[in-house]
Amino acid sequence: MTYCVGLLLKAGMVLLSDTRTNAGLDNIATYRKMFLFEEPGERVIAILTAGSLSVTQTTIARLQEAISGDPGAEATESIMTAPTMLRVAGIVGRTLAAVRAEVADKMAAMKQSATASMIVAGQRQGGGMRMFLIYPEGNFIEATEDTPFLQIGEHKYGKPILDRVVTPDTSLADARKAVLLSMDSTIRSNLSVGMPLDLVVIGADACRVGEQRRIEAGDPGFARMSEAWSQALREAFRGIEA
Amino acid sequence: MTYCVGLLLKAGMVLLSDTRTNAGLDNIATYRKMFLFEEPGERVIAILTAGSLSVTQTTIARLQEAISGDPGAEATESIMTAPTMLRVAGIVGRTLAAVRAEVADKMAAMKQSATASMIVAGQRQGGGMRMFLIYPEGNFIEATEDTPFLQIGEHKYGKPILDRVVTPDTSLADARKAVLLSMDSTIRSNLSVGMPLDLVVIGADACRVGEQRRIEAGDPGFARMSEAWSQALREAFRGIEA
Repeated sequence: MTYCVGLLLKAGMVLLSDTRTNAGLDNIATYRKMFLFEEPGERVIAILTAGSLSVTQTTIARLQEAISGDPGAEATESIMTAPTMLRVAGIVGRTLAAVRAEVADKMAAMKQSATASMIVAGQRQGGGMRMFLIYPEGNFIEATEDTPFLQIGEHKYGKPILDRVVTPDTSLADARKAVLLSMDSTIRSNLSVGMPLDLVVIGADACRVGEQRRIEAGDPGFARMSEAWSQALREAFRGIEA
Repeated sequence: MTYCVGLLLKAGMVLLSDTRTNAGLDNIATYRKMFLFEEPGERVIAILTAGSLSVTQTTIARLQEAISGDPGAEATESIMTAPTMLRVAGIVGRTLAAVRAEVADKMAAMKQSATASMIVAGQRQGGGMRMFLIYPEGNFIEATEDTPFLQIGEHKYGKPILDRVVTPDTSLADARKAVLLSMDSTIRSNLSVGMPLDLVVIGADACRVGEQRRIEAGDPGFARMSEAWSQALREAFRGIEA
């Protein structure tokens, strides 16, 4: 399983992903699920992935090949030259759907299936910030003012905190805190979501990655925040009149 | 969908269920999902249900018929005369599994399936308090000191609060508050869980229902607690150093 979350705010975008993958409970590994594509000042795109690793890796690999312009690459449009973020979402959707269908065909022989979904967030010079959730079939939805966040993977445990504190006016510092606490609740409740974490903050109209951090297991800042949140929750609980 | 939760504490047991059932999003109804069986001072049993209404209603009806001793009843042992709570769990499990299999047979023609699960909690004079989660197949697990709560239905949104505040030493007043806040988080995040709620508190060794309450939509106490919790969470959030 996986948990990835993206916030689309007036001040910018904040994205967080875990890195745990598992095939059964006895085969656990660490894989990056956040991929950044950047031409600083011109264009920045972040892709977060959830689902079957063979689908997500192949999809990202094809997108990268198309960017590289390698003449041997399969014909996929480059997300770095697509004229709009909407077109970027379309390219990612088509590539994901094609890869998913190919893998599913192979797996049908074993009566198994494979699926994956992605969050695509970014901005190009002259355009607005956009954030999309791409479904396995390649169609997508977009974050809006009413619902300024998107989640993929194990999204339920970490949703109540986002529902309560995130609005389009949330500051980047608060947004950073919100996604980390949302992840903390998820990690506590679901073994298949795990450290380390990848965090990225992209300021509005910068068209470049502002902050990029890998948060390792045992990171003292994250541990302190997690402990403080537990304690604050318990105190808040004590303060409520039954 | 449904959310039911039971806490097994040294001080007693606290149980809470919602009442929303739906067949699709356009067919929503209110049905009780908590059933109490009591011979005050001798035996008290609470059954909470989740899943296909046709399975849970028929299961409860058969258990009730067996208690009534009606000579025309299908042969099911009575949970009110079973010598131990473990035997009660076994009876409920067998009845549920039999009903589920019958309904599933009928639905197979439409390529649909039906499933249900239950929480069975109770105590008989001379025995300890016991709480079981009965799976659709009739097997079950039991709440223990390490994990003093059981949930069925839409359990994820409301789990983080329980994970953080509930231990076997939690008081009945705090337990009441914890299950209501756990339900509040679930109702906020999932449309298919809804008011009114049924709450029951059973003190240790009383072998009778201590408190039984239906909490209607718009209940001022619940609304106040819900609002206070939202505010406390937002304040706790503000207090955390990022």
